Amino acid sequence: MKLYVVGLGPGGVYEMTNRAVAALEASDVIVGYTVYVDLIREQFSYKTLLATGMKKEVERCKIAVEECLKGKTVAMVCSGDAGVYGMAGIVHEVARMYPEVDIEVVPGVTAACSAAAVLGAPLIHDFVLISLSDLLTPWEKIEKRLLLAAEADFVICLYNPSSKKRHDYLEKACDLIMKYKAKDTVCGYVQHIGREGQMSHTCTLEELKSAKVDMFTTIIIGNSETRLIHEKMVTPRGYEKRYEV
Amino acid sequence: MKLYVVGLGPGGVYEMTNRAVAALEASDVIVGYTVYVDLIREQFSYKTLLATGMKKEVERCKIAVEECLKGKTVAMVCSGDAGVYGMAGIVHEVARMYPEVDIEVVPGVTAACSAAAVLGAPLIHDFVLISLSDLLTPWEKIEKRLLLAAEADFVICLYNPSSKKRHDYLEKACDLIMKYKAKDTVCGYVQHIGREGQMSHTCTLEELKSAKVDMFTTIIIGNSETRLIHEKMVTPRGYEKRYEV
Repeated sequence: MKLYVVGLGPGGVYEMTNRAVAALEASDVIVGYTVYVDLIREQFSYKTLLATGMKKEVERCKIAVEECLKGKTVAMVCSGDAGVYGMAGIVHEVARMYPEVDIEVVPGVTAACSAAAVLGAPLIHDFVLISLSDLLTPWEKIEKRLLLAAEADFVICLYNPSSKKRHDYLEKACDLIMKYKAKDTVCGYVQHIGREGQMSHTCTLEELKSAKVDMFTTIIIGNSETRLIHEKMVTPRGYEKRYEV
Repeated sequence: MKLYVVGLGPGGVYEMTNRAVAALEASDVIVGYTVYVDLIREQFSYKTLLATGMKKEVERCKIAVEECLKGKTVAMVCSGDAGVYGMAGIVHEVARMYPEVDIEVVPGVTAACSAAAVLGAPLIHDFVLISLSDLLTPWEKIEKRLLLAAEADFVICLYNPSSKKRHDYLEKACDLIMKYKAKDTVCGYVQHIGREGQMSHTCTLEELKSAKVDMFTTIIIGNSETRLIHEKMVTPRGYEKRYEV
């Protein structure tokens, strides 16, 4: 009884791996959040497609496991990579009572990597991913991580930077980060990566505070060496210290 | 004049995105480290394939830029994602004098994500990537980052954990991390991901100290909530605190 958890990457089928496409082709049933199922609906319309709404993650997993227990091969689809703030974890948790369900996580391109590619090459050195959503994580823990990440001079990639209820979280995060990083640190953000309406911007950390972002925005804050080359955000790996570049 | 920088993902063509395959198909010349060019040699034998050895990164970029300036469409290939410790940065640096070279980074599945998929779902919450290679980064900076990442209770993913010259670096890193993380923290590592001889292991942080790893190993050290479910490493997102899982 196979249950694939498949990362679609940033957009539709074009940004999926061949392995991810093969997993969907091998499945009888595809389960996912409506927006993500819509990304592959056309190509996989001959499959049973079960879409559920936002914040229905646990319910969605239960549906996937139930279908699997009926003898169906099931794929649970996620945007980006299923293993980064995605459904791979909760699927394992929900299915823990059914060891006969064989879970295979099929990785995809996570938003950090697809945003970085649009912005240039900001993740060339050590970096952290932090979600600003405090729906499931206490804000105090998020604050502590932001401060320590800034102190360590990591490149910082922010997921879920804002929502209607959390409109000032990015501003708060930038203020914390500025305790260690300079105001003119090179930053960038990308909206609707790989989809209609994709937009990208670069700015300073000070300017980022008042950037208009939403939950579909991925933000990258450079380290102390990140700079702009022809409008692209580039973090050096260090070759220039040893070689003539 | 197009210069693609293409992440191949962990293995060969099967783990590439459709977009990455399209970029190689659109190219006249494919440049890369010998081991990576070999991964796609069979399928792209009709292209001009230029392979260079290890530690020839700057030279490789210069070759790619030169070919591009001759009017060729060029693809520089990297393992995993070209933007994570990959060639995307140095390509921008080497090509900075030639704004006519249009660089497009095509993202791929980075080793953190492909290792996580093999191990279960360890990257479901905030995490850091740290390379233990001190070839281009002072060891003191690496130490500082390891300590602050451990203090913040991030999941920690280690790239380049060992080499012949750096055989005791993983042990040193574990000792530093154990100043903040418990000895029985759930850890895992994967060797030769997506390639012949793929092997994965889970262990405690204490056991990880003496694990036999090489430069082709990716290591994931859990956070304080990471646990094993049927031998798989799972970091909770936090759903169990709000929902019945």
